[in-house]
Amino acid sequence: MQALILDASGPRVVADHPFVARPGEATVDVRLAGVCATDLELVKGYMGFSGVLGHEWVGTVSDGPAAWMGARVVGDINAACGGCETCRAGRSTHCPSRTVLGIQGRDGAFAEHLSLPVENLHRVPDGVSDEAAVFVEPLAAACQILEQVHVRPSDRVVVLGLGRLGQLCARVLALTGARVQGVSRSPGPLALLPASVPGVLSAEVEPDRSADIVVDCTGSSAGMATAMQWLRPRGTLVLKTTTHDIGETTPTAWVIDEVTVVGSRCGPFEPALRLLSAGLIDPTGLIQAERALADGLDALHQAAKAGVMKVVVRP
Amino acid sequence: MQALILDASGPRVVADHPFVARPGEATVDVRLAGVCATDLELVKGYMGFSGVLGHEWVGTVSDGPAAWMGARVVGDINAACGGCETCRAGRSTHCPSRTVLGIQGRDGAFAEHLSLPVENLHRVPDGVSDEAAVFVEPLAAACQILEQVHVRPSDRVVVLGLGRLGQLCARVLALTGARVQGVSRSPGPLALLPASVPGVLSAEVEPDRSADIVVDCTGSSAGMATAMQWLRPRGTLVLKTTTHDIGETTPTAWVIDEVTVVGSRCGPFEPALRLLSAGLIDPTGLIQAERALADGLDALHQAAKAGVMKVVVRP
Repeated sequence: MQALILDASGPRVVADHPFVARPGEATVDVRLAGVCATDLELVKGYMGFSGVLGHEWVGTVSDGPAAWMGARVVGDINAACGGCETCRAGRSTHCPSRTVLGIQGRDGAFAEHLSLPVENLHRVPDGVSDEAAVFVEPLAAACQILEQVHVRPSDRVVVLGLGRLGQLCARVLALTGARVQGVSRSPGPLALLPASVPGVLSAEVEPDRSADIVVDCTGSSAGMATAMQWLRPRGTLVLKTTTHDIGETTPTAWVIDEVTVVGSRCGPFEPALRLLSAGLIDPTGLIQAERALADGLDALHQAAKAGVMKVVVRP
Repeated sequence: MQALILDASGPRVVADHPFVARPGEATVDVRLAGVCATDLELVKGYMGFSGVLGHEWVGTVSDGPAAWMGARVVGDINAACGGCETCRAGRSTHCPSRTVLGIQGRDGAFAEHLSLPVENLHRVPDGVSDEAAVFVEPLAAACQILEQVHVRPSDRVVVLGLGRLGQLCARVLALTGARVQGVSRSPGPLALLPASVPGVLSAEVEPDRSADIVVDCTGSSAGMATAMQWLRPRGTLVLKTTTHDIGETTPTAWVIDEVTVVGSRCGPFEPALRLLSAGLIDPTGLIQAERALADGLDALHQAAKAGVMKVVVRP
């Protein structure tokens, strides 16, 4: 099948990638897939992944249990063993022997078909378009903040970095009634914010150490130090950025200010689908380019450009 | 008065340090004071403090409101303004204009007298000896973990580093019913643990990534990386160690494992006094040396020795 693969030679589209339907899993025909910052990191060597890229997608079940045949679905990207202590404790996204679609040990979604356990699949309600459903995975990651942190309606929340994930986090957090402010280094992302999220240019505002919660979506190691400038003592810093160092902050500052730093990754799909289905979140305005799978390499190039939001790939 | 002071020339005992009773504050005659790791850091230049050292103490009110005269007391070390937004939000220990006894802008307890606002004072119950009461400040810091983190009776908790603070944290955490394990690099501190806290030598055990909560009391930047080896995914790392870097761990690891890192500092005095009064915590066995205030410099030297627990100073 046609697929955008990554190996030691880098990323490229091939016409003859072998599709392997794993035993007992469903086969899904990919309808639409989205490019994520993690894809761009994988291309740079993060996780040492090789195989088909892509983990944000919506598709149609073409092989599997009768009850699922023809269903339009999205799917949890972590395929867990289900039997280990971590899985049985309800933390299957952290299963030590998990594979992760398009990220770790499992071919992804920039392809004609993908294989995933049926228990990972979620039906997409009729009212939710493919263009909205392709955001379920990152929207679930935004919902994960609310799984981990109690955000109060009276809280002041600052979202640093308004790229793909920051845009979704800001939208979800604003649903709590909290006063959410988006901070961006460039004006482009500010124009995309909904009315529920006032935005500000970082150059035009002075951090005031008064936010109850700061969400770092900067993707930069400088993000944590900036977050500390916004955060009040005993505030919570939610870390969506994966970096190798903490920049100009120190653990001493965290102890003195008694801050809580929460690492946050994948989230629950059903709430994300509910928010889309109810029309409470409309992420489709974030799609800025669509490419055919044959032009998948160009999709990666487009997504890597500064200020570009979501680029989708259609097999 | 006689006092152990720190200035640009280093720490030394002087006979004629001027005692200044601040307007509207109580004067306390110090009965007994304890040496803390923070004192040793201050001597190395931490916080740039100059003045009388010492912030763990018990004393007798010798001047102040009639209701307090003669009372045996301990006291919160953070003297806050009471009027700012931080204070009014109930976070007075983080008041941006606070002074901190023996740490920041305010003379401390290694002296004949100290001055502190009456609202900072707490009466010591008759049944609590001076030798126990001198531990109230660090014991309150141990209680602060339970203020910040929900520790469940079914949790597995690992306390890394069994120095002065680690010993108290382990004792307080064990009161929850949680399975608490103390990990030490040397055998001496293990012998001091109560029956409620099984201890183990770090060289004789393999971290197993299964602890729900890890408390880093190592005082070393290597502590966070070691903590990550003990901590389960989505676990909580409580940071009692003030260091300038995170050692061999990375924010990426925190995001992937979705850990929560909680900086933890000063805590509530009343619960600490209740635990001492009820006999639920007996820290007096941790006192390993006592020096007269005149020998305060030797007290600092003793406390700096590897494996030495609490050294107390008697004015």
